Amino acid sequence: MEAKEIKEAIQRRKLIDVLLDKNQFADLVLKDGFFINVITREIYQADVAVKGDHVLMVGDAKDLIGPSTKVEDVRGKFICPGFIDSHMHFESAMLTVTEFSRLSIPTGTTTLIGDPHEIGNVLGVQGMLEMVKEAKTLPNKVKFTVPCAVPDAPGLETSGYDVNSNHMKELLNDPYVQGIGEIQSFSNVKPVYQNAPHLIDDLVAAVTYAESIGKTVEGNAPGLFGKELAAHIISGGTHVSCHETTTKEEMVEKLRYGVSVFMREGSSQRNMAECIRAITEDGLDSRRAILVSDDMVPEDLIKYGHMNDIVRRTIAQGIDPVEAIQMATINPAAHFGFKDVGVLAPGKKADIAVISDLENMVIDQVYLNGKKSAEKGKLTIDLGRYTYPDSVKNSVKCKPVTKNDLVIKANGRKARVRAIEAIPDQNLTGAREFELNVADGIVQPCLQQDVLPMLVIERHGRSGKIGKTFIHGFKLGSGAIAESVAHDTHNIIVSGTNYEDMVTAVNRVIAMGGGIAMIKDGKVVGDMELNVGGLITDQLSGQEVAEKIAELTRLAEVELECGIHVPFMHLSFWSLVTSPKWKITDMGLIDVDKFEIIPTVI
Amino acid sequence: MEAKEIKEAIQRRKLIDVLLDKNQFADLVLKDGFFINVITREIYQADVAVKGDHVLMVGDAKDLIGPSTKVEDVRGKFICPGFIDSHMHFESAMLTVTEFSRLSIPTGTTTLIGDPHEIGNVLGVQGMLEMVKEAKTLPNKVKFTVPCAVPDAPGLETSGYDVNSNHMKELLNDPYVQGIGEIQSFSNVKPVYQNAPHLIDDLVAAVTYAESIGKTVEGNAPGLFGKELAAHIISGGTHVSCHETTTKEEMVEKLRYGVSVFMREGSSQRNMAECIRAITEDGLDSRRAILVSDDMVPEDLIKYGHMNDIVRRTIAQGIDPVEAIQMATINPAAHFGFKDVGVLAPGKKADIAVISDLENMVIDQVYLNGKKSAEKGKLTIDLGRYTYPDSVKNSVKCKPVTKNDLVIKANGRKARVRAIEAIPDQNLTGAREFELNVADGIVQPCLQQDVLPMLVIERHGRSGKIGKTFIHGFKLGSGAIAESVAHDTHNIIVSGTNYEDMVTAVNRVIAMGGGIAMIKDGKVVGDMELNVGGLITDQLSGQEVAEKIAELTRLAEVELECGIHVPFMHLSFWSLVTSPKWKITDMGLIDVDKFEIIPTVI
Repeated sequence: MEAKEIKEAIQRRKLIDVLLDKNQFADLVLKDGFFINVITREIYQADVAVKGDHVLMVGDAKDLIGPSTKVEDVRGKFICPGFIDSHMHFESAMLTVTEFSRLSIPTGTTTLIGDPHEIGNVLGVQGMLEMVKEAKTLPNKVKFTVPCAVPDAPGLETSGYDVNSNHMKELLNDPYVQGIGEIQSFSNVKPVYQNAPHLIDDLVAAVTYAESIGKTVEGNAPGLFGKELAAHIISGGTHVSCHETTTKEEMVEKLRYGVSVFMREGSSQRNMAECIRAITEDGLDSRRAILVSDDMVPEDLIKYGHMNDIVRRTIAQGIDPVEAIQMATINPAAHFGFKDVGVLAPGKKADIAVISDLENMVIDQVYLNGKKSAEKGKLTIDLGRYTYPDSVKNSVKCKPVTKNDLVIKANGRKARVRAIEAIPDQNLTGAREFELNVADGIVQPCLQQDVLPMLVIERHGRSGKIGKTFIHGFKLGSGAIAESVAHDTHNIIVSGTNYEDMVTAVNRVIAMGGGIAMIKDGKVVGDMELNVGGLITDQLSGQEVAEKIAELTRLAEVELECGIHVPFMHLSFWSLVTSPKWKITDMGLIDVDKFEIIPTVI
Repeated sequence: MEAKEIKEAIQRRKLIDVLLDKNQFADLVLKDGFFINVITREIYQADVAVKGDHVLMVGDAKDLIGPSTKVEDVRGKFICPGFIDSHMHFESAMLTVTEFSRLSIPTGTTTLIGDPHEIGNVLGVQGMLEMVKEAKTLPNKVKFTVPCAVPDAPGLETSGYDVNSNHMKELLNDPYVQGIGEIQSFSNVKPVYQNAPHLIDDLVAAVTYAESIGKTVEGNAPGLFGKELAAHIISGGTHVSCHETTTKEEMVEKLRYGVSVFMREGSSQRNMAECIRAITEDGLDSRRAILVSDDMVPEDLIKYGHMNDIVRRTIAQGIDPVEAIQMATINPAAHFGFKDVGVLAPGKKADIAVISDLENMVIDQVYLNGKKSAEKGKLTIDLGRYTYPDSVKNSVKCKPVTKNDLVIKANGRKARVRAIEAIPDQNLTGAREFELNVADGIVQPCLQQDVLPMLVIERHGRSGKIGKTFIHGFKLGSGAIAESVAHDTHNIIVSGTNYEDMVTAVNRVIAMGGGIAMIKDGKVVGDMELNVGGLITDQLSGQEVAEKIAELTRLAEVELECGIHVPFMHLSFWSLVTSPKWKITDMGLIDVDKFEIIPTVI
């Protein structure tokens, strides 16, 4: 037993005293609000009485108001459980857990399930545990689902550290670790089964260990149906989620198969409107439909909000507001088996969102453990600033590159090449072929066809390899962009209209020890240092990162004439080998479905 | 980790092979049935493919049919997960776990959550563990929720053994023990808080220990609302059930407060029709509405069925059939956190009910772990017969009684007395006063007013006390009935139209070493030996017990002119001190609400 559990028992015993002893009273009563009951799917007028960290009761609480009780009149406002984001990556926001929380708490999100597999790819178990350590300093609930296989596709890419079933004991036994995160190593069911069945053995071993100590397991099943979907579900212990569901047809199949579908509505991938049709059109029971953000940029958190905005968009698709709120409260709590959050009822943690406008999901106040923590969009508690130790910094371990390292070579005057096709707002890509000019044995970028070189330079001091291909649809007009954010192994990815700027961009990222660099005509147009693992900054606040990214985005549009929005996020996903069709890693161009490296120049 | 978990991992790994290797096939395919999906609340045509103990997938399974696959054509029939009875007492049926299972498996029930607190009251921890031991020999899933406080009301009644938080480690660590059962020691919230607050400390300690090892806790909150309900919920760790909910108003309050309401539909108490109105009339989300039997007599199991019949009755109240089935499958699975049963999906245990008539819930076939175990109401597997060790027999440890021991004395010619008022089909009782004749200092039974003596004789060799009161509404015309089944401490309870027959009845029960005896004019009209703890027989089959009870019931009606149905079950509950208003124990007449002993003769 943990001391935390004993303390909880003592506090519960005291709650019983407050409820039954006429001389004891609540610390706080939210009075006369419209209570959103996510269990019964009702709204009715009720008070919420709070003592310490906990809800005493919801109902008529006048007997619990004593001389020192703080009474907050919430007449005309709505009271609901704080929101849960069941699947998100702090790294996507480039923020520390603290800075992400600073932006998300005022929007009503009180529980975050972070998946630190980006840091895990760069810094291994120790890197992830540093993030867990940070979470323990915070008043909101932050738990982690950790990878059981890093890299996602051994043999096809190089990470900074490897993680497998041998690391589960060290990772999973921390109480802040909820379980195993998205099991991407078996997302490509058929290719992995044929080419790397030992990965499945390792996965089942890790999953079984996790279950034996009461931990949960999350799936990752893009495009899977029937027998392949069944195999994926079973590999994860039969009770998994999927946050890579993009069509109504997939939504129906996965719900029917027992998957908790994490409908993703992040800054770049948005799948809810399509998935929700299974409920709005076919009337399926929504108890296993859950809303998640997956990847958010800080600018969106500031401008639009977090889970509140995702709930708002869900309501706009025709879902009853209480049902939409269930998808961010009781449904995820049931999925994870949380007993203390996700509903407001006697003894639960007093993590509360007070909403002034239900349809637009305007958050008026937020309580964490019974303490008012935000009001009218502003944090009212001091979160401090968290600084990471040096052990997770200086993670870029490669030497500067030269043009000769980066060029894509071919014989003759023309070359037929393969190019990854960008699909805006999707992790998925297309697969295309183009004919490009060759000059001095070097395949030339082609702006007319929008086909540019795209490379991944290994930066963990391991393989030393550089993978090379082309991208179609990046819509870059000039210059180059490089970044040390390149899912999931986070080597340095670069693309550009000319090799010279690409070299400069990569070397700028190396010089910063990780980050983003935009180069035009040999000069830095804009850059940003990401000093923690090359993924996150602990030097800037959420607001500052948002401004910085906005400025970089503006510069990309104005100076590099980039025609795709959030270009850094799109670029970073073109190396993610767990979603089809083609991706680029340090090993080369990857045919995801075939689980193999294919040549770029045909 | 348990060996069982490792074996499960190995089997899961093999399931993946069957799904993905074209040369491997299912063992069994249920073909072309109407599949009842309790996750999405749909019915659609699908096959269910099974390998070993597990479901491979549900959908189009033609690729999984090989030369040795058994194909069962279920066209026109409905396939659904086997039913879960989330709260039941084997002792109420007077049957061993095996004999109960023999009757319940053919009705589609594949999981039983037994609460052995009756045996616990008589035989303590060892008695309960003997029942757990029996469960391990069976192919259906049987788990137990065990009491953390025996007796229910220390100081007001005497059990054979005491159980408290000190016993939790020994009881809860068995994998067949699901958690702590109905926490009756804090059902009477106010009286216990005022008179025995140390019981709450012990309860919270037991609950906290249970939660720390991942076990669940069930509540018991008859008639509780508001602050008292909140206190009860918190004492149980905030995520509890209640199977003592009898009104729509209570149902609404409890669901709103986060309680899983176990709507009881047993042989004597039937609360579903009232509770379900919260759903049919008010449209509340039914995810925490669950159907349970609590107490069943074998005759009803044979005549009407088990959970299938309860589901049928629920459908008859206007609930959609799939929603009603959810209340006996996915809803309880979610409540207990079961990951392997309650839904049919990839990797789940192949516990399946095939239904030929949905509205009437006629069960055509039942599969346990993928094996056909019953067809057309008949068991098709051999369950064997289970015999208990001598250590749990010979549990009646009191000496024969005399008339002088039993008579209720008073001075004068008339006495004003208190009498418990029977409420048919309820554990609850009323409280009445009557004026009775006194002859030779002995208060006389009065058939005109239907007021008879009712006594409880301690039989565990501990207090040696005899509690005395009167019962109004037993409608007995002559003779006496005694039994060693008297909730929850199971001393000997007796009532009759004359003291002489009462003496003979008690002494017959003592001579049998436990059981039921009916006496008229000094002769045995009928009796039945209950050799295990005075509660259960391991000498008779379920069918034989049903016939025996039917015969005893008939004799009670014909020979003793008893006007109440299931008289033995009613009699046995009039000593249950956890539900109001008045009850009788070996300590005397109990005012349940006041948590105190009150005199019978005023």
